[in-house]
Amino acid sequence: MSTQSGESSHVLDLDSVNQNVKKMEYAVRGPLVIRAGEIEKELKAGKNDKPFNGVIRANIGDCHATGQKPLTFIRQVIACCTDTTLLDDPKYPKDVKEKVKLLLSYCGGNSVGSYSDSAGIEIIRRHCAEYIAERDGIPSNWQDIVLTNGASEAVKFVLALINSSSTDDKPTGVLIPIPQYPLYTATLAEYAMHPIKYYLDEGNEWKLNIAELKRALDNDRSLCRPKAIVIINPGNPTGSVLNKENIKEIINFAKEEKLIIIADEVYQHNVYKEGAAFHSFKKVMHELGINLELASLMSSSKGFMGECGLRGGYCEFINLKPEIKALFLKMLSARLCCSILGQITMDCVVAPPKPGDPSYDLFTSEKNSTLESLKAKAKLAAETFNSIPGMKSNPVAGAMYAFPQIMLPEKAIKEARDAGVEPDFFYAKNLLETTGICIVPGSGFGQIPGTYHFRTTILPQFEELKKMMDRLKTFHLQFLEKYK
Amino acid sequence: MSTQSGESSHVLDLDSVNQNVKKMEYAVRGPLVIRAGEIEKELKAGKNDKPFNGVIRANIGDCHATGQKPLTFIRQVIACCTDTTLLDDPKYPKDVKEKVKLLLSYCGGNSVGSYSDSAGIEIIRRHCAEYIAERDGIPSNWQDIVLTNGASEAVKFVLALINSSSTDDKPTGVLIPIPQYPLYTATLAEYAMHPIKYYLDEGNEWKLNIAELKRALDNDRSLCRPKAIVIINPGNPTGSVLNKENIKEIINFAKEEKLIIIADEVYQHNVYKEGAAFHSFKKVMHELGINLELASLMSSSKGFMGECGLRGGYCEFINLKPEIKALFLKMLSARLCCSILGQITMDCVVAPPKPGDPSYDLFTSEKNSTLESLKAKAKLAAETFNSIPGMKSNPVAGAMYAFPQIMLPEKAIKEARDAGVEPDFFYAKNLLETTGICIVPGSGFGQIPGTYHFRTTILPQFEELKKMMDRLKTFHLQFLEKYK
Repeated sequence: MSTQSGESSHVLDLDSVNQNVKKMEYAVRGPLVIRAGEIEKELKAGKNDKPFNGVIRANIGDCHATGQKPLTFIRQVIACCTDTTLLDDPKYPKDVKEKVKLLLSYCGGNSVGSYSDSAGIEIIRRHCAEYIAERDGIPSNWQDIVLTNGASEAVKFVLALINSSSTDDKPTGVLIPIPQYPLYTATLAEYAMHPIKYYLDEGNEWKLNIAELKRALDNDRSLCRPKAIVIINPGNPTGSVLNKENIKEIINFAKEEKLIIIADEVYQHNVYKEGAAFHSFKKVMHELGINLELASLMSSSKGFMGECGLRGGYCEFINLKPEIKALFLKMLSARLCCSILGQITMDCVVAPPKPGDPSYDLFTSEKNSTLESLKAKAKLAAETFNSIPGMKSNPVAGAMYAFPQIMLPEKAIKEARDAGVEPDFFYAKNLLETTGICIVPGSGFGQIPGTYHFRTTILPQFEELKKMMDRLKTFHLQFLEKYK
Repeated sequence: MSTQSGESSHVLDLDSVNQNVKKMEYAVRGPLVIRAGEIEKELKAGKNDKPFNGVIRANIGDCHATGQKPLTFIRQVIACCTDTTLLDDPKYPKDVKEKVKLLLSYCGGNSVGSYSDSAGIEIIRRHCAEYIAERDGIPSNWQDIVLTNGASEAVKFVLALINSSSTDDKPTGVLIPIPQYPLYTATLAEYAMHPIKYYLDEGNEWKLNIAELKRALDNDRSLCRPKAIVIINPGNPTGSVLNKENIKEIINFAKEEKLIIIADEVYQHNVYKEGAAFHSFKKVMHELGINLELASLMSSSKGFMGECGLRGGYCEFINLKPEIKALFLKMLSARLCCSILGQITMDCVVAPPKPGDPSYDLFTSEKNSTLESLKAKAKLAAETFNSIPGMKSNPVAGAMYAFPQIMLPEKAIKEARDAGVEPDFFYAKNLLETTGICIVPGSGFGQIPGTYHFRTTILPQFEELKKMMDRLKTFHLQFLEKYK
């Protein structure tokens, strides 16, 4: 009634709302994923006009959702921190209880229900620093480390700190890889910052090509004020792992062009390819004797733990001027603090049981078993894609994804264009409706125009992934046949 | 070495960094709190030149840090969700286990380590809607509800959605109360939005005065494009509880001025004053037959649970156009999801044990005991302040704070000005150094120029609060004596 009498005229419409939000796209959670959810509901409701009986969600790096088991140690620590009566329960190992008591002694009122410092609980920041120091063999200062709700929040904070789009004559420019994890373009769009898109070199295992970085930068220099470069290593969506030589070139380029380095290193535990290794930007920069401003991001959502829902993460931001570091910390304070249980998850990753501790053997075997399974699945995915006509894939050297190229028939491309959608979206939509497999089209991450890709995770359990690969192969051949 | 050779020239300095971040202030975690931390460390290290032996942190609504006990039910649910082997433990009540099984059935792979939908786990959003419907006696649509990392994140999302400062000819204006919870000014500064400051009516128990709202709006109309009004009820820092008449006036004002209402209702369980009651803006709007865009914020950090560190919260955003609701949900997707254990905390608050459930009696007695204790402390605080010469306080009708006015001697004001600090900061700093009591000066929240206040929480345990009140009284009298 009140609506009819005109009392609900809206303040917010598509013209008055934040225009930057309209530009945001986040393909990993885009329309195909929404459609996948609908299909799941249809199947659950008994509607069964599909030639499959379940959706395989290979669209998102959501480890536990596809059957990966949590690490016992992490879950025991969180349970005891939350319900402290469990500290008297003999079933929990001594090292779990010791960690819990230590962590609680750093919480206000010994409760995980208290706020921490905005930058995180001191002892956990110290543990992160020790972990980094041991990883790189060079010192790390715990006061350079802030704890965040996953790495996503760290990305937003770092980009917000460097963003002077609203007061400068030009928007702040940030070099980002194409293909990229769409959190970057989405956040840059929200903040009215300018993405300077550089293409990764598909013919060279998705490495960064310095000439291409220069081309991208020169191309956009007049449009923005370039301030930073984002590198995702190991790569998302590419599954690449950069070698040290490539990292050195990138650092020298950043130095020459006066760029902050934002190193998204959340997959640092996920390296599978023979001969490949994770090299942190911090360590390589140290070897070069260069001291650029560098933010390195880490998360407890990936690696061998896969605790996405617990939202643990950290950011080590080094070589900041002291006054800028103070501003960064002040910026964090307005969100009070990130989840204490997320912080504790991160602690278990950076300060795991040591040899001799009661939880050590189980922790190690659970960790290795997950990493070995991922390694086998990485191999399976790349080999399958390379065995399919009209498809080719770089090795899945690391991270949790394959990003094969697909050669689409002209007829399919035309039908997609006529329907007003990207050809790889058309392909992925068909795949979903025909097989229940949910992947993300390459256009959601960016690709060289005229090429088509998709991203799939390698997370489904081995037998499930094998089934998925078979179904995908059959679909692909039928698709080629249909549109030949 | 490399520093000396000039290889560490910085990209970020005070001119090139985000200028909006420089303007942010967040007094609740400002310099006095940092000083309090230093004093604590000094005391711990055995340095004992202070006439007290511990700091009382009355600066922040951090319930558990000041001794409030967590609710057993909440902690049991989280522990069992995290370590599911506890579902076989006979010590956990049946209703705890049933809730855990229900919640896990809505988690990917039955694990709290999986991502949820960006808007939150469906069953928890449904429980929030049922809670709101029962509270207000009118329907609530679960799809209008999004789960957030505390209410702080909801504030940031809502303000970001309505912010068109970067593309409009004028910045987006938001009416905010003075005194206010500084999250609002900090976020508006970060987003380059314009705060339209209206004074709360101290002489009328901190209610909103419509003439004052009009004055503030008319004053700033040429400087910005006004879009929303923030109301904090029960009030932070004021401890006020608005009556229904006042809320009606505000809604009519918002309707007339075409403003979105942002109702910060995180203290809805915290009402102490005889005859006072919480009225949601949604319910009162319904009674008036008006349908404005309204965002209501709720948190699991306050109320009787006080689980600040677990970061649970929700936002019910009603009467949005469908296309704007879609944009709002899209905006959430770039942070993937908020903490699953935070979501579960919120679930325990909105869907607590029912009469007859095994956990009901304990839950109810723990809840009532906390609320009764807060009620007694609210009374103690206001009565003490009103018994001190040169100090006066409105009743602490709700929330967790008192915000007394202090009449500072001219000599103290002069000494503060000479030192380049606000007089109430000068007072609060002296109080901290002399007594160890950490409060927040009124200037951190805003106040009518020439008046001075401070905010103290009423959270310290009763005997502790009594001691604190005595110390404060003694300090105040000495301060008056010293500067008379």
